[in-house]
Amino acid sequence: MRTALLSFVVLALVGVAARADEGMWLFTNPPRKLLEDKYKFDPTPKWLEHVQKSSVRFNSGGSGSFVSPHGLVLTNHHVGLTVLQQISKPGGKDYVKDGFYADSHDKEVKAEQEELNVLMKIEDVSKRVNAAVTEGLTPDKAAAARRAVLAEIESEGLEKAEKAGIKPAHTEVVTLYQGGQYNLYTYKKYTDVRLVFAPEQQIAFFGGDPDNFEYPRFDLDVCFFRVYEDGKPAKIENYLKWSKEGARDDELVFVSGHPGRTDRLSTVADLEYQRDRIFPFSLQLLNRMEVAYSVYSNRSEENARRAKEDLFSVQNSRKAREGGMGGLLDPSIMGKKREAEKKLRAAVADNPDLKDAGGAWDKIAGAQKVLGQNSLRYNMLEGARGFNSHLFRIGRTLLRASEELPKPSGERLREFRESNLASLKDTLFSKEEIYEDFEIMRLANSLTFLANQLGADSDILKTVLAGKSPQERATELVTGTRLKDVDVRKKLYEGGRTAVNDAHDPMIELAHTIDAPARAVRKVVEAESEVKQQAYAQIAKAKFAVEGTSTYPDATFTLRLSFGVVKGYEENGKHVPFETTFAGLYERSAEHHNQPPFDLPERWVQRKNKLNLKTPFNFVCTADIIGGNSGSPVVNRNGEFVGIIFDGNIQSLVLDFVYTEEVARALAVHSRGITEALRKVYEADKLADELTGKK
Amino acid sequence: MRTALLSFVVLALVGVAARADEGMWLFTNPPRKLLEDKYKFDPTPKWLEHVQKSSVRFNSGGSGSFVSPHGLVLTNHHVGLTVLQQISKPGGKDYVKDGFYADSHDKEVKAEQEELNVLMKIEDVSKRVNAAVTEGLTPDKAAAARRAVLAEIESEGLEKAEKAGIKPAHTEVVTLYQGGQYNLYTYKKYTDVRLVFAPEQQIAFFGGDPDNFEYPRFDLDVCFFRVYEDGKPAKIENYLKWSKEGARDDELVFVSGHPGRTDRLSTVADLEYQRDRIFPFSLQLLNRMEVAYSVYSNRSEENARRAKEDLFSVQNSRKAREGGMGGLLDPSIMGKKREAEKKLRAAVADNPDLKDAGGAWDKIAGAQKVLGQNSLRYNMLEGARGFNSHLFRIGRTLLRASEELPKPSGERLREFRESNLASLKDTLFSKEEIYEDFEIMRLANSLTFLANQLGADSDILKTVLAGKSPQERATELVTGTRLKDVDVRKKLYEGGRTAVNDAHDPMIELAHTIDAPARAVRKVVEAESEVKQQAYAQIAKAKFAVEGTSTYPDATFTLRLSFGVVKGYEENGKHVPFETTFAGLYERSAEHHNQPPFDLPERWVQRKNKLNLKTPFNFVCTADIIGGNSGSPVVNRNGEFVGIIFDGNIQSLVLDFVYTEEVARALAVHSRGITEALRKVYEADKLADELTGKK
Repeated sequence: MRTALLSFVVLALVGVAARADEGMWLFTNPPRKLLEDKYKFDPTPKWLEHVQKSSVRFNSGGSGSFVSPHGLVLTNHHVGLTVLQQISKPGGKDYVKDGFYADSHDKEVKAEQEELNVLMKIEDVSKRVNAAVTEGLTPDKAAAARRAVLAEIESEGLEKAEKAGIKPAHTEVVTLYQGGQYNLYTYKKYTDVRLVFAPEQQIAFFGGDPDNFEYPRFDLDVCFFRVYEDGKPAKIENYLKWSKEGARDDELVFVSGHPGRTDRLSTVADLEYQRDRIFPFSLQLLNRMEVAYSVYSNRSEENARRAKEDLFSVQNSRKAREGGMGGLLDPSIMGKKREAEKKLRAAVADNPDLKDAGGAWDKIAGAQKVLGQNSLRYNMLEGARGFNSHLFRIGRTLLRASEELPKPSGERLREFRESNLASLKDTLFSKEEIYEDFEIMRLANSLTFLANQLGADSDILKTVLAGKSPQERATELVTGTRLKDVDVRKKLYEGGRTAVNDAHDPMIELAHTIDAPARAVRKVVEAESEVKQQAYAQIAKAKFAVEGTSTYPDATFTLRLSFGVVKGYEENGKHVPFETTFAGLYERSAEHHNQPPFDLPERWVQRKNKLNLKTPFNFVCTADIIGGNSGSPVVNRNGEFVGIIFDGNIQSLVLDFVYTEEVARALAVHSRGITEALRKVYEADKLADELTGKK
Repeated sequence: MRTALLSFVVLALVGVAARADEGMWLFTNPPRKLLEDKYKFDPTPKWLEHVQKSSVRFNSGGSGSFVSPHGLVLTNHHVGLTVLQQISKPGGKDYVKDGFYADSHDKEVKAEQEELNVLMKIEDVSKRVNAAVTEGLTPDKAAAARRAVLAEIESEGLEKAEKAGIKPAHTEVVTLYQGGQYNLYTYKKYTDVRLVFAPEQQIAFFGGDPDNFEYPRFDLDVCFFRVYEDGKPAKIENYLKWSKEGARDDELVFVSGHPGRTDRLSTVADLEYQRDRIFPFSLQLLNRMEVAYSVYSNRSEENARRAKEDLFSVQNSRKAREGGMGGLLDPSIMGKKREAEKKLRAAVADNPDLKDAGGAWDKIAGAQKVLGQNSLRYNMLEGARGFNSHLFRIGRTLLRASEELPKPSGERLREFRESNLASLKDTLFSKEEIYEDFEIMRLANSLTFLANQLGADSDILKTVLAGKSPQERATELVTGTRLKDVDVRKKLYEGGRTAVNDAHDPMIELAHTIDAPARAVRKVVEAESEVKQQAYAQIAKAKFAVEGTSTYPDATFTLRLSFGVVKGYEENGKHVPFETTFAGLYERSAEHHNQPPFDLPERWVQRKNKLNLKTPFNFVCTADIIGGNSGSPVVNRNGEFVGIIFDGNIQSLVLDFVYTEEVARALAVHSRGITEALRKVYEADKLADELTGKK
């Protein structure tokens, strides 16, 4: 599963090969010439406005679209999953496992914490921002001046929006092209969001980890919400009509959604560092955790239940990293990057106005070197990879809160800033069950990893293990701490430094023993990251100066338009067709004797004979997507809904760094698969009628 | 599962704490005083001879014992597994899955390649060996002189044995105390070995990987063979009587078997190197392989079948390494080692006769340093960790055969020496199926690991990948090679250098591109290993001089006597009782809804109500065991059979390096569990009667 919003690193822009289906384009700057030349298609302003305003952002991290005039929003099941979990109550209905369908408005279930945004207005405010940040300011002052003018623009924008009838509104100035352009985005907010339909997770995520990031696929990864205004379904002017035929082989399609973050600007040296250091380290860690969690899970059913989410999350990350690693080791991809970098550096060298940017590559390489020397300790100590334990994190948060909170907000470690305290406390005082045996296993395993990485004879290891083996030490810490008790945490948080010190809690004391080195290495890493950021901004600006807006900016979790073709591909010498069908779903399940994770929900077994098994279920296209695009509508030339993005194939995992269309594909659920399932499996004709406009 | 014979490194002896149940003792030098002081037990010469001659060595790597006067031998199912696989024919009876019982001699099935040895005579030949290896010889000449005298002694011994009526006989001079003592062992050989009884693998290895190396356990890990002479069941004078009561809590027991190899002499520096380098590297590799094999297996049932053995083997090694890592990170264990080393070094320093040995520790540390600088390349290239592919190994063997075979045997790479060619060809021309998809996955995965370890920009990587990604390159190599065809391999082997060169086979060419660096690093590693070996021999001799034979020599896959107490232990604050019962077996299976690997064979489900569920099934004791002890009988003071060793718990995995009895335990199947299962589940009363001596 493509996580709704991947939290990766750094910035972007890349040289766009003339004929590739590349790009996460701004709606204000679509690739007109490219579309005209290659597809004889001209996106009219009306077409663009319609698609833009039919697109929805899920602020929890994902995309969606309006699919009826009555506020109906379609997104992925895995985007709606957080809501499904929140509204499921112990002992009550399990919305995740059993799914849900409200066949009338009064049965729709409110999602308390969901906020949807629709982008209504885009305004270029670059001049005003640049005017405020005058040349010659020190970096500190420049940053402050920029912050001030952005806040001003956003406030004014909010006022204007509400006067113009966009209310409630949300405004934000988006930094595009790493500072080459600033746009004020005005959104209409929807905060009354209700669940209409979700299938069983088993069919939404059919095939589980083995099929995750793979293709062919057979997933009904959809979830319907409805937005309300004044207690009634919102009237929606711009929504996507449901295509009768759905996605067809070889047709031009568009994806309108909110890609989270890409690293396409990364220098070659930075990518090589990722390839040779960061990814191998992550993979080593993830493989170790996956094995440990699997072994724990296999010991008993109860263990499996306790570890399920963590195991899935580790497997998901491991697949993503392994795919990314494959891309970084692909000489054709790195070759492209090298060529583009060479070209840009030559252009910079030729242009005296850009001489400042000339040193940026070396600055990055220099920072990289220092980061390389510190990254292991940073990950193990500050990143707490050596202390994989909820109780440790709680202990450290309490320790640091006692030290940080007495300081002014601006001088604290970032996570203790005033505006973050509410969510920090939510996590700290969470009543989520902590299982001692699972904690001991995780902590012992990660202490072993810590010893492997830093050396068992290092001073830090000796202090941490206190003369015991990892297993003994983990047992002593987890059984000895009182931090399992939420009331104890609250008292210590409120009690401040004295209370925390007097508690003599072993987990807090452990956090204390490594806190000085952890803070020290964090300081180094943050300083060097800042150097890198500034150098990347210089490169981006140079690139912007050279290429202008004839290209697209790096992803920023704001609305973008991608395009591509519905198209199969070759893999290991075999053709992988562009679409799958329901028949394929049943075959795949039968191959696995209907055993998890290939088991079908009861309803799908019983109603098999009602389904037209030839109906297309999932399909692939070449559009340029990334995490955050989950739930994005796939639309055809007519602006009709033909499918919904839910994943990428394993070969698409390189799209963080570079676009490629040979075998990388975006995965979508086919519109016809959705309505066929709604009608035949879920007897949700009313919902299907609303989609297809049938009276 | 404890592998029948772990293939580990190096030598041993260790300071024996007075009161511990430590030691793998020579039958000629049992710990009389210790047994007398602690247990008031005096093993008489008669008792010792009886146990010795009742013990059986499986030359395939394991132990066993005679349990009736009619040639009946009991060992572990996992020791007999190779035979069970060999006699199972495709489409015919599956002895592994279904088990087997011959209720009359004529139904017993012959095992073609099994040879059993019984140790009949032990003779100290140290003087003669030492006389032949005179002082002042160069190392080369000394080694040659030693080889010559050993061969002479063995030949004469063989003649004498056959004259004395031990025939067929096998003789070997065993180097004990790393050269402190040489003993001539005379064995009686049994080569007509027939299968009598094996349970279903599912009950022999109930719990699979999750329960492997764990306790409590519920495994019927037994297998009965019968040895024949002149076509009739052999008459056996010394066999173990079946104890009526079996193993009891807190009683003194003995284990008589063939521990494979221990590393108890390892210097602290060597252990630290294992702890900080070798084990972490192995674990990184094994975790990566386990995840890759699991992902592959989970894609389809057929994949799972293809990968099953490899996956199990990786999981088994990973558990063993993780357990060993835990021991190496246990300060109490390393503390013991440090103390013992300090003591020995002090004794050496005080004794002018031992001044040669004084430098041994530094020699080892020096060699270690060089090994440390070369081990990664050695493992990746010569160890082929970066080329995890049967086809690659075949290609390399063909390439090297073409280069090595023209040389005189003594100058070839060791595996091409004349005496090894038969088994080398067996492997090379094996008709075992090679699955292209599994090969591609393994090769691509290991090429990725190679890039992670050596850096993707290293020259070697560039040559190996030839401008392609690991996935592309692996696909091209596996689909392009003709080495899947056994006839092609034979032709190339016979055709020699010209044929191999002219073949232009991509897999052979790949082997060729890395052969020079692989051979170079092998040369360095072999030279430094020799330095270490010699230094260890010096330490061992010094230790022998200081302590004499009041201790036991390192394990050498020859007969040893261990002792200990039947005894539970504390784990995570809970008491783990000394024994399990059949009732526990059914509970454990029910907890897992009888799903693999906790599923019970049909017979066990149907006959549950016939069994006395309180019968002891498995139990633990403190005896000092290691790989190779699999199948060893556990005997009581009366020399009666009370159980059979089949595994160690996870805490016992440190026994490679050091004995500990706090929580480390040897695992055994209880004698009463065996007979109860034979009678009630398998209706094998005749076999059970033979064991219990019932007429």
